[in-house]
Amino acid sequence: MSSLEISSSCCSQETKLPSSPPSVEASAGEPLEKGVNEGDEKSKDVIKFTAEKLSVEEVSQLVTSPLCGAVSLFVGTTRNNFEGKKVVSLEYEALVPVSEASIVIAVSSAHRAASLEAVSYAIDALKAKVPIWKKEMYEEPSSSSWKRNKECFWATASD
Amino acid sequence: MSSLEISSSCCSQETKLPSSPPSVEASAGEPLEKGVNEGDEKSKDVIKFTAEKLSVEEVSQLVTSPLCGAVSLFVGTTRNNFEGKKVVSLEYEALVPVSEASIVIAVSSAHRAASLEAVSYAIDALKAKVPIWKKEMYEEPSSSSWKRNKECFWATASD
Repeated sequence: MSSLEISSSCCSQETKLPSSPPSVEASAGEPLEKGVNEGDEKSKDVIKFTAEKLSVEEVSQLVTSPLCGAVSLFVGTTRNNFEGKKVVSLEYEALVPVSEASIVIAVSSAHRAASLEAVSYAIDALKAKVPIWKKEMYEEPSSSSWKRNKECFWATASD
Repeated sequence: MSSLEISSSCCSQETKLPSSPPSVEASAGEPLEKGVNEGDEKSKDVIKFTAEKLSVEEVSQLVTSPLCGAVSLFVGTTRNNFEGKKVVSLEYEALVPVSEASIVIAVSSAHRAASLEAVSYAIDALKAKVPIWKKEMYEEPSSSSWKRNKECFWATASD
């Protein structure tokens, strides 16, 4: 599985970040089904890992609610360069081509400030807490390098 | 024309906000054509007004670049309520149904902080500078109200 979607929809008038960990759906390929229906007023958090190509539109729709006026999103994509070397793809547990999203985070809120702040918080928190390893595949034949997420605060033992 | 897309792609290693106003395409229905191609290293800004339904995916793709590792987006949607009244649609110069996007802003950057900040800046700047009027259509028959964007700093004469 290669890609991650995090969605948080706020259908009450206040945005609240989850006090307990959100449910994790390890449902590769399953349709996103925890959408927000009109009249459904509970906040919902969805985390999904998938081997499928991520759809920004789908994740955006997942958090869109008639009670909310704002959806903020962050899309993490693969850059084509690292220290002058041309990266052609990344390997997590599956292959992500350059320019393709490896993570989509979406948060909705009644007014914009809450969702903009929540998206920044979510990607920062993920980078700090999850020790993501990725293998950069360079242009030169058989050239690659394993990279650890340096922002992860607890995974320093491997340095 | 009812909807607005603002896109800024940063294909150099630094993000810079435009020093001169970006080009405005008043091209309702035209395809988005100022995309970033691999090897194209100039920053580009695109502003488009359209009567078509906005596509978050399309705007996201527009700014996606092999040189960038982050795309941040803001989607402004129509809420279904105002002071206890149920809003069924908004009228700008065309009709926007509840939950449909009236603006999509997307910015890409090499690393995430720049694009997250730029999206917040862009929506705040737009709200401060553009005197957006919208007509809220309520559930009650023939009930509606014109609303001015209160954040617009120069349009207070009409109060």
